[in-house]
Amino acid sequence: MKRIFTFILTCTTVAVYAQNSSKYQLVPFVKTMIGTQRMGHTYPGATVPFGMVQLSPETDTISYERNGKYNPDVYKYCAGYQYDDKTIVGFSHTHFSGTGHSDLGDFLIMPSVGKLQLNPGTADDPSSGYRSPFSHDEEYSEANYYKVRLAKNNITAELTTTARVGFHQYTFPESDDAHIILDLMSGIYNYSGKNVWTYLRVVNDTLVMGYRQTNGWARNRTLYFAMIFSKPFYRHGFKSYAPKEVYRGFWHKFDQTNNFPEISGSQIRAHFDFKTTEREQVKIKFALSPVSMDGALHNLVSEVADWNFDKVKAQGQQLWEKELSKIAIQGNDELKQNFYTAMYHAMINPTLYMDVDSLYKGLDQNIHKASGFTNYTTFSLWDTYRALHPLFTIIQPDRNADMIKSMLAHYDQSPEHMLPVWSNSANENWCMSGYHAVAVLADAAVKGSNQFDAARALEACVATARKRDYENIGTYIDLGFIPDTSSGTSVSGTLEYAYDDWAIAQLAAKLGKKDIYEEFIKRSQNYKHVYDASTGFMRPRSSEGDFHVPFDPLSTSNGGFIEGNAWNYTLFVPQDPEGLIKLMGGNNRFVNYLDSLFTMHLPDKYFAETEDITRDGIIGNYVHGNEPSHHVAYLYNWTNKPWKTQERIRMILPLMYKPAPDGLGGNDDCGQMSAWYIFSALGFYPVTPGSDRYELGSPSVDQAIIHLDNGKNFVIKVTNKSPQNVYVSKVMFNGKEIKEHYIKHSDIIKGGDLIFFMSAQHK
Amino acid sequence: MKRIFTFILTCTTVAVYAQNSSKYQLVPFVKTMIGTQRMGHTYPGATVPFGMVQLSPETDTISYERNGKYNPDVYKYCAGYQYDDKTIVGFSHTHFSGTGHSDLGDFLIMPSVGKLQLNPGTADDPSSGYRSPFSHDEEYSEANYYKVRLAKNNITAELTTTARVGFHQYTFPESDDAHIILDLMSGIYNYSGKNVWTYLRVVNDTLVMGYRQTNGWARNRTLYFAMIFSKPFYRHGFKSYAPKEVYRGFWHKFDQTNNFPEISGSQIRAHFDFKTTEREQVKIKFALSPVSMDGALHNLVSEVADWNFDKVKAQGQQLWEKELSKIAIQGNDELKQNFYTAMYHAMINPTLYMDVDSLYKGLDQNIHKASGFTNYTTFSLWDTYRALHPLFTIIQPDRNADMIKSMLAHYDQSPEHMLPVWSNSANENWCMSGYHAVAVLADAAVKGSNQFDAARALEACVATARKRDYENIGTYIDLGFIPDTSSGTSVSGTLEYAYDDWAIAQLAAKLGKKDIYEEFIKRSQNYKHVYDASTGFMRPRSSEGDFHVPFDPLSTSNGGFIEGNAWNYTLFVPQDPEGLIKLMGGNNRFVNYLDSLFTMHLPDKYFAETEDITRDGIIGNYVHGNEPSHHVAYLYNWTNKPWKTQERIRMILPLMYKPAPDGLGGNDDCGQMSAWYIFSALGFYPVTPGSDRYELGSPSVDQAIIHLDNGKNFVIKVTNKSPQNVYVSKVMFNGKEIKEHYIKHSDIIKGGDLIFFMSAQHK
Repeated sequence: MKRIFTFILTCTTVAVYAQNSSKYQLVPFVKTMIGTQRMGHTYPGATVPFGMVQLSPETDTISYERNGKYNPDVYKYCAGYQYDDKTIVGFSHTHFSGTGHSDLGDFLIMPSVGKLQLNPGTADDPSSGYRSPFSHDEEYSEANYYKVRLAKNNITAELTTTARVGFHQYTFPESDDAHIILDLMSGIYNYSGKNVWTYLRVVNDTLVMGYRQTNGWARNRTLYFAMIFSKPFYRHGFKSYAPKEVYRGFWHKFDQTNNFPEISGSQIRAHFDFKTTEREQVKIKFALSPVSMDGALHNLVSEVADWNFDKVKAQGQQLWEKELSKIAIQGNDELKQNFYTAMYHAMINPTLYMDVDSLYKGLDQNIHKASGFTNYTTFSLWDTYRALHPLFTIIQPDRNADMIKSMLAHYDQSPEHMLPVWSNSANENWCMSGYHAVAVLADAAVKGSNQFDAARALEACVATARKRDYENIGTYIDLGFIPDTSSGTSVSGTLEYAYDDWAIAQLAAKLGKKDIYEEFIKRSQNYKHVYDASTGFMRPRSSEGDFHVPFDPLSTSNGGFIEGNAWNYTLFVPQDPEGLIKLMGGNNRFVNYLDSLFTMHLPDKYFAETEDITRDGIIGNYVHGNEPSHHVAYLYNWTNKPWKTQERIRMILPLMYKPAPDGLGGNDDCGQMSAWYIFSALGFYPVTPGSDRYELGSPSVDQAIIHLDNGKNFVIKVTNKSPQNVYVSKVMFNGKEIKEHYIKHSDIIKGGDLIFFMSAQHK
Repeated sequence: MKRIFTFILTCTTVAVYAQNSSKYQLVPFVKTMIGTQRMGHTYPGATVPFGMVQLSPETDTISYERNGKYNPDVYKYCAGYQYDDKTIVGFSHTHFSGTGHSDLGDFLIMPSVGKLQLNPGTADDPSSGYRSPFSHDEEYSEANYYKVRLAKNNITAELTTTARVGFHQYTFPESDDAHIILDLMSGIYNYSGKNVWTYLRVVNDTLVMGYRQTNGWARNRTLYFAMIFSKPFYRHGFKSYAPKEVYRGFWHKFDQTNNFPEISGSQIRAHFDFKTTEREQVKIKFALSPVSMDGALHNLVSEVADWNFDKVKAQGQQLWEKELSKIAIQGNDELKQNFYTAMYHAMINPTLYMDVDSLYKGLDQNIHKASGFTNYTTFSLWDTYRALHPLFTIIQPDRNADMIKSMLAHYDQSPEHMLPVWSNSANENWCMSGYHAVAVLADAAVKGSNQFDAARALEACVATARKRDYENIGTYIDLGFIPDTSSGTSVSGTLEYAYDDWAIAQLAAKLGKKDIYEEFIKRSQNYKHVYDASTGFMRPRSSEGDFHVPFDPLSTSNGGFIEGNAWNYTLFVPQDPEGLIKLMGGNNRFVNYLDSLFTMHLPDKYFAETEDITRDGIIGNYVHGNEPSHHVAYLYNWTNKPWKTQERIRMILPLMYKPAPDGLGGNDDCGQMSAWYIFSALGFYPVTPGSDRYELGSPSVDQAIIHLDNGKNFVIKVTNKSPQNVYVSKVMFNGKEIKEHYIKHSDIIKGGDLIFFMSAQHK
């Protein structure tokens, strides 16, 4: 709790940096610093809901490689910012929120005064470059607003955004030698060779355009920009940091170092120079486009008409207020900070990927026009199919339908003819296992969305799931499981395919496609093929069927699994908990198994190999910081001890979510961690996307109203609530007691009152 | 003459490769092999007039670099083909015609059978790779048609084109293991790092799309393609030859080596595999686009509807017949071969740079739509302003206007706000001196073209000529010459600027812009500032005005000049021959100077430093193989011995132009050498583009009819013609004797009869 107190203190006592956001009810509860320390991998900068621009500080820009190999230190900088760092390198325009692998960090801007330094310098010696020390005491952030004093030169930086435009406001001291540096080399998860090509054109003394083309997580990615200064620069220049090339051509006819209008290469830094008076503000509007420089300029002039920073900030915050207010909760400030920051993190991704004229780049690397939908990218589907998209199905049904249309466009344009696995910026990066887009499509269809072509969706699902040459799908189809000889993650792969297959079957059933239903409902039982009754765990097998020896059910790295060990992954049968319980020996043995998971001691050596999370992200051997167990606490609902679900949820909520920089026990993963929080705090959770059921848990809110798009309200009331009263003695929906351990989506969208009656004693 | 005989023999005796082109009157006289040996730098492959595609064999693809430095051997391969070579590497889709620096060679295709070899191998050991030996006995080419038997595998390759599509026809032997190799690494003037990025997507078993992005002579160049096979390949694969990268991502989930649909990287080769029966033809339609892969596919389906190779060939040859027939000459076959091959080479460049939907990439790297004009690129203006564009003014006025509009679009889009110097593929490469686009614009305007906005043209000319920071323009303006301390080509630079300035003055005069006229007519006299009366040569000076010591008027490499020594460049005052003659001491001394130039002995050591030409390209010290002296033989017209112009021209014509592979005495330079031939063979030449005058020479044709676009004919008749009768005793135009040594453009476009009366004795 000390950490929380410190954080609140920091935000409230530095009067000079306090801002008045009193016109908003909910925006003040968004604490963008949550998750910026340790493993949360969130960023504190400015963005609007689902915006294309994420304008945020980089506290370091270390390379993905060291001595020609992977540099594990880069992992901390997935979102560019680490709370413990003491310097800021600059402000770049694109960031993933909460990911465990990374890319982006495009177009880093940094103001400075005095002798021009085009290298960032080191954290240990910020005077060696353009980076600046800073203090959290002189840093302040809100949704769509970030402010910091750069101590080295006493420059105050303020950032805000529209959907496609980053708006910078730099307050300079008096100087004859003020600079805005634009570093096109800089990037997140950079390595030599990642920058394929960058280009910069100075159109006039206030307008600059260009692009950055990278070969990273996204293999063929180009992002274009247009940048307008509020004040003309009197001088500009570039420097190329690429190794000297054999071929130089005839460009020596110009002095390219001095006010030259264009440059290109793989390693370019530029500077724009000003003379400033005391407290003079130099502002920059920086627009992005996935299509072209002209597209970026068009986006810029369409979205921001003038130089009113506060207006742009306010417009973005109004957008946040609108999105946040879709769920109005009651509770104390800490709860609201957790809840609305979770709402904020849940509505950053997927991100807009389309110009104002509806043009976007497709997976086929051609330019397309989005007809009848808004195109999105940044689909971290292994994470977000679980709770984030189900949350959108309730509070963002239109956007969720557009996201599905974006996935179907992806399918149409994909060279492999597959739905997205982990897609970003017109590229597929194939990160993580399964083909979980199918769960998003099935979930939306089963829950009644008619905003997309379900038949086309089914076709895309089936084509993806029959893609024999993708990650052992062929052997999975032939053998009914993935053999350990084919894959180092054979068990988690098998289990995830089986669940996804079940989701496809649900979509097929919905459409009356019996053959497809039969094919995939059969596949969905493949989870049984990797269960070893002798040890009671899901376990790697050879293609001959022999279980792999040795086998350590606590180990994540020992083969068979990804981001989870056998203890956790054995429970990954969300499509058939009854079957799983039967397989594992029935109710009592299953309850014991769950109890053990939450209470056993995980020796340190196993923690060290558990990816993506802090020690705090683990309860016993239950790993909340990774996603595969996100449904696990709800599995007690299928036993004779559903009260243990209630108990576990109320235990997990405060342990894993705290309103502090290190408040997240693991990567937020594009909002999945936050979506788990939102559902669980409200008292229910979608254990099985693709069904219309939500498992009931134990709410932590005092009350909540979900304002549905159909105009109705779904109200969650909690009687007799207290920190101790974690047990639910009764649940009433619209005056009728719910006897089951779930509610249906169709109930929620009808609107009405869901009343939890709380107790300190379980039934 | 032996060489000529050999060539004619080769083309006529190999019956199996002879083609029937009898339906065309003029196409049969085009000998595309002319200039492919030694320094001509032409290519023998297929193209249509001004086409985007130049589909031609590469006999070698050696690198621009060797041991990290310039490799002078690369120079031979500016057009990819050298007649003396014994092997063919493959067939690529883009080639410059006659240039002395290079780029392109995009998308090399090679058929093979047997064991797959993805490396080209070496010329010494073609079995070491996919290249094949070939013989000129089994090679045949026409305008828009090329055929060769690839001896290694007995595959016959045939090539033809439309404007934007290369059409390949490969006749295979029977094989279970036939391949079409697509080498995306290959290129002309390649070096490590030139290929910035290449991308390939296999859409289905007959359609492949992709692009190649290079950093070469064109700094930011991307060319897209779409490729359709006539027969489905049963297998395909790729290999990346890039150094192993640190970052590989998650693509290992696929077996990318086996039928994988997409690949990208800087060094990629692909193969498409077939089973073929004896004499089975596999055809490929390969379309280009400067805009996108979709654009290329659109171009493909728009231009070629079916698989009829002969129809496509015929359509292109009809286009050639139409263009060639703009000038109908009479003469023997050798003359017609020279003339119509010159016509052919003159109408290859500039090249189309626009999709069928009028989209193209601009200098600003944005996509533009050409409204009201056809967009062209490949402007080798230092060469082509002299005679090629003046030729277009007569026989291609509409295209020339479109070229000017393309140059004005270039100006609008140029980051430097300048007209093109040497531009290609949405890039400026700044090759060679001067800003000669102004001469093209002025020439067209002065000659009455009203198809473009002359006021805008003047604005562009003035902006370009006032660009102080480009190649010493600032010091040139300030001092009236370029000092040798600022430039290694200070004299040629000064002389060319002075001429260009004169051209701008003419355009200003035409538009009544007196101030601009005064400014530039004054600048046009700057040639006098580098004349050294003590030696009688134009000579490098310091900024203080001292002439540089030592000074060797025979040396090209000794400072002050480019592609010409002081002897030649001293005569480069086409805008003011009278003034030059006065400066050089009057008529007699000037005649003596010219005589000496043509008759003196140039010691071998100076030849060695004369660029771009063979020994045959020099007559005495007169260098015809480079452009700066192209007007020189006509300068006698300003003296009392104009008959010496007639004599020299008739001497130069047969010496410098022969219907043989080594028939060109120097680089054809995008048609400038050929345009010189065409004018001179007809009996007149545009010594001073920007004036409406053509100097009269001595025609080598028996008769010629220029079919003008206005429907009129300009007929050149030659009476008493013989090889000995090189002198013109009288010239009549429409029944009236011409007393001056020139005719006017306005006379030509009126149509009528120009009659040369020839004699063995000069007047």
